[in-house]
Amino acid sequence: MILVGDELLEGRVSDANLCPVARALGEMGLRVSEGRIAPDEPAAIASALAGALGESRLVVTTGGLGPTDDDLTVAAVAAALGLPLEESPEAAACVKAWYAARGAACPPSAMKQAILPRGATAVPNPAGVAPGVVILTDGRAVICLPGVPREVEALLPACLAAAGIRRMPAAETALLRTWGIPENRLYDLISSSGVCAVSDLAFLPRPGLVDIKFRGADSSKRAGAVADLLPGSVYSTVWKSLEETVGDALSADNLILSVAESCTGGLLGGRLTSVAGSSDWFAGGVVAYSNYLKRSVLKVGGDILAGTGAVSGECARAMAAGARALTGSDCAVAVTGIAGPGGATPAKPVGTVWIAVETPSGSTAREWRFGGARQVVREAACSCALGMVLAALGADAG
Amino acid sequence: MILVGDELLEGRVSDANLCPVARALGEMGLRVSEGRIAPDEPAAIASALAGALGESRLVVTTGGLGPTDDDLTVAAVAAALGLPLEESPEAAACVKAWYAARGAACPPSAMKQAILPRGATAVPNPAGVAPGVVILTDGRAVICLPGVPREVEALLPACLAAAGIRRMPAAETALLRTWGIPENRLYDLISSSGVCAVSDLAFLPRPGLVDIKFRGADSSKRAGAVADLLPGSVYSTVWKSLEETVGDALSADNLILSVAESCTGGLLGGRLTSVAGSSDWFAGGVVAYSNYLKRSVLKVGGDILAGTGAVSGECARAMAAGARALTGSDCAVAVTGIAGPGGATPAKPVGTVWIAVETPSGSTAREWRFGGARQVVREAACSCALGMVLAALGADAG
Repeated sequence: MILVGDELLEGRVSDANLCPVARALGEMGLRVSEGRIAPDEPAAIASALAGALGESRLVVTTGGLGPTDDDLTVAAVAAALGLPLEESPEAAACVKAWYAARGAACPPSAMKQAILPRGATAVPNPAGVAPGVVILTDGRAVICLPGVPREVEALLPACLAAAGIRRMPAAETALLRTWGIPENRLYDLISSSGVCAVSDLAFLPRPGLVDIKFRGADSSKRAGAVADLLPGSVYSTVWKSLEETVGDALSADNLILSVAESCTGGLLGGRLTSVAGSSDWFAGGVVAYSNYLKRSVLKVGGDILAGTGAVSGECARAMAAGARALTGSDCAVAVTGIAGPGGATPAKPVGTVWIAVETPSGSTAREWRFGGARQVVREAACSCALGMVLAALGADAG
Repeated sequence: MILVGDELLEGRVSDANLCPVARALGEMGLRVSEGRIAPDEPAAIASALAGALGESRLVVTTGGLGPTDDDLTVAAVAAALGLPLEESPEAAACVKAWYAARGAACPPSAMKQAILPRGATAVPNPAGVAPGVVILTDGRAVICLPGVPREVEALLPACLAAAGIRRMPAAETALLRTWGIPENRLYDLISSSGVCAVSDLAFLPRPGLVDIKFRGADSSKRAGAVADLLPGSVYSTVWKSLEETVGDALSADNLILSVAESCTGGLLGGRLTSVAGSSDWFAGGVVAYSNYLKRSVLKVGGDILAGTGAVSGECARAMAAGARALTGSDCAVAVTGIAGPGGATPAKPVGTVWIAVETPSGSTAREWRFGGARQVVREAACSCALGMVLAALGADAG
């Protein structure tokens, strides 16, 4: 894959295309062997393409397909492949149809997006103006996609079909998605158990979560043995998110969840509502960032706030109870902690977070100590709050 | 830059290191000329390094410094540079000190992180076990950093210093960060105004936001002329976030903000509280994902919900008023809309979002139509909600 754009190399934006494209290709049995990130310069794009074509039978580029003068990918690809540029009637029809469907005049600058290398296929873009471009050359294929992630997602399947790429058989793999156990602790647990060679595994940590990937023969059997070492900590054995797993568990039991958030400030609700259809099992809740709101809206006792303080098991439990009462939901989860950089005390360092879950059958609270910067602590707290909801529901891995 | 890791090429995780490293280097006057993404394979890492060293005087790698057997970066770099590997006393001290500070025994596997190319400098890692590695060779420098973003952030300045990299003079640039106007509309506005050549500008869109970057002579003057075309839509002329700008405007007026969120589900509160110190100007609020909570907690009239519906200016205004009353805050912002994929009607397609802001001096509401998938609509709604708060406060660009 070649990711094109000065914005990527200048640190103005993070690439959001490699991950979904690589996953989609992986599901077809195709492996991305390397990636290159090129600036908006024809020579650099052409050089990256030449390098990539030397190693792969398919090259996918993202970025640089727009109408402005810093959109240079198509011209650079044509130059690298020695193909002349000419207006493609197919592509011109795509561009005009986009504006016509919106009752708008097609600006002359937009027609730049209809100039393609000779022989290229233009793939209509349901989410934007610029068509996808597919070029077949010497038994290899080049697919040029726009830089906007939703357009990439919309165009990729049709471009792969136009390039004649079909699903290939994949090697055996297995996956355990875990929450609440740090990577080094997982490594030691598996290593000391002797159930399988830990050096054959790939660990992928994100805040509060670690994916463990198994490859090769007996992957599923080894994954099962490792899962037995981690009761309650494996939330999925497929590429299903923790949020979706929680939603499915709530739906299965016909329960509604609410939240009470302090240090996460709404991120937990944001994670839950990232799942389409979450209104079936999520009511909403309270962002009680100030102690005043913890008292006035969630009815946390003044004695708790003055005594053990807002970052305590008592406060987390009272917040969960308050959210449940306020919203009338079946279950509630509350998060209160010190995300930093300020607010720490010797007894409660940055990263101290209390999480409580209340369900119809009881409540539980747990103290966590997360490492890392403010956003890492907050994301880890959300992940562990979701995991604790799943544990309280006694749900199996999705 | 070389980003190492199978997880990047398999689509399991998005890189989060290029962006902050490129920005930090940019602030020192250094430009990242290209990026490469390599799998956890010694030959691929070595080949990427050889290619990068041919073009740049500094190569920064991230990933593959850990203790496990798929952490291969240091060995591959040593092989590519023809340097033998040996235990570094400096690095061994770093590793041992990390465990000693935590009262834990140093596991034998961790000492792999002390094996460095001969002559390399080990830079102590305040955020993790693996030290940063700096190698000077033939007038070029190679810096190897871990893959965890917080460790990269913690290590980079000291590694640059160890590599003898100093600040260089930067070319003149200027920046306008805008909200609420789509990229193509901005392009047409500037283009038809004739105040400057639009082809010299770089546009960087994110949901609800577009950065416009000016380069070369007269950058500041041209940026000023473009800013005059966009009254109320420029929130910053430096790399300051919209969230920070809103916080500064609230602080300057000594005001407290609260939120009422429906389709954003907490994301808006999450964005506001991403700013350290946000408790000085943010109280919290209500995630009213269900109509029941809109009625019971935010006191939205049943006539509104039954009449114009939850996605309406009336409902958004009532939600903002309800949040302000509930929290006692000076200002409130409310978001209600259809993020999709479900929930649309012919009159209210996916992407329809109403946002209302109430301040001590009055209230305002506006309907938006955002394109794109669920997460894009939600992020765009948050950005425009923040922009509308800024506009309501009459704040100047930060």
